[in-house]
Amino acid sequence: MLRPEDRAAAGDLLWRYTALLDEDRLEDWTELFVEDCLYRILTKENEVQSLPLPLVLCDNKNMLRDRVQSLRQANIYNIHTDRHVVGFPHIAEEGEFLSVSASYALYQTDQEGVTRLFSVGCYRDRLVRVDGALLFKEKTVIVDTAGILTLLATPI
Amino acid sequence: MLRPEDRAAAGDLLWRYTALLDEDRLEDWTELFVEDCLYRILTKENEVQSLPLPLVLCDNKNMLRDRVQSLRQANIYNIHTDRHVVGFPHIAEEGEFLSVSASYALYQTDQEGVTRLFSVGCYRDRLVRVDGALLFKEKTVIVDTAGILTLLATPI
Amino acid sequence: MLRPEDRAAAGDLLWRYTALLDEDRLEDWTELFVEDCLYRILTKENEVQSLPLPLVLCDNKNMLRDRVQSLRQANIYNIHTDRHVVGFPHIAEEGEFLSVSASYALYQTDQEGVTRLFSVGCYRDRLVRVDGALLFKEKTVIVDTAGILTLLATPI
Repeated sequence: MLRPEDRAAAGDLLWRYTALLDEDRLEDWTELFVEDCLYRILTKENEVQSLPLPLVLCDNKNMLRDRVQSLRQANIYNIHTDRHVVGFPHIAEEGEFLSVSASYALYQTDQEGVTRLFSVGCYRDRLVRVDGALLFKEKTVIVDTAGILTLLATPI
Repeated sequence: MLRPEDRAAAGDLLWRYTALLDEDRLEDWTELFVEDCLYRILTKENEVQSLPLPLVLCDNKNMLRDRVQSLRQANIYNIHTDRHVVGFPHIAEEGEFLSVSASYALYQTDQEGVTRLFSVGCYRDRLVRVDGALLFKEKTVIVDTAGILTLLATPI
Repeated sequence: MLRPEDRAAAGDLLWRYTALLDEDRLEDWTELFVEDCLYRILTKENEVQSLPLPLVLCDNKNMLRDRVQSLRQANIYNIHTDRHVVGFPHIAEEGEFLSVSASYALYQTDQEGVTRLFSVGCYRDRLVRVDGALLFKEKTVIVDTAGILTLLATPI
């Protein structure tokens, strides 16, 4: 059985992940990953058929840092704020990792204050303990919503 | 006070319920219920006025199995994938049961990858322990969204 | 480390807050606050810039009661039912308080049963223990969705 303190710590990391994105603290967001991490966004179709065609693939932390830096510089994408609502998660031990699964809905609000549903899907994560703190070893985002992925800029 | 392991197990069952629906594993979904179960979908109006007019009523597990089988065969309903986002739940002891209450939002994504809100509402569930595992004795879905219920096919 | 029973009690209060609103039990909802409470609704813009311009500000429980009473009497606002879906929360000790942070999505369903997204945002709360029960000392709602705030009537 999973220890209550591990469950709590995993839930806190999941919460922190979305809170930092929603507050546009992207640099701090990268610090939730280990150096040798995997971040990827797949479509549900890809995942079901085991197709190796991620929409986004970063297989180390420097790629995440680069991505954030180019978002800060380019900044030509549609300006918005994000709001993640993450459903009640499943947290379990999986060998040396903690695995976390959760549904999400991601809303974007434009500069006129109009909110639209941007994407729904789920997270499949592997967490690892480093110096007493939990960090993401793997973050896999599986998106149901394919129609708007051309607008994909900030992380999900 | 509810034991932490019971709280965790109830949360896991709630998560599993929606994960199986979202992955279209309907046959596995029926296995989350005891044989002598109650599954029903009510409108909020029905529930407030105590009207005995459920939109869907299955009062044993074979009815759930039949429902899944006819969905598999008929398959003439609008093709979509589901995504449930379940709000933070309330879990309590209630005699021999665990009661679980939670809000949900259910999104459907069509074959073009366009996601729409299908229904919001809440769950009012009774869970029972059988051979050490928690299962649904009763699952009551109270739906706010009435306008689209003619499209109701897969379970909520 | 936060005690499991405090985490559970804070989660229960958060759940009860939205359940009472969604069931239109506004009088019971006021009882979740201490007399000397703060309830306010801010825009995300206000909060980021630390502007002291709340959309709604009630700095004691009588103001909440008055607000509910005038909603009951005036009742000329658009009739709807609410449904909150609250994301997985962050709960922590903060001196004498428990702090709770959570994202929310608020849907409204009109009398024809049509559901629309009304607002997304987050809660930043401070809870205090009074006679063994947790109550809200402060409830701050930070809304992303500004475009529809002229329709703001029932609490978020």
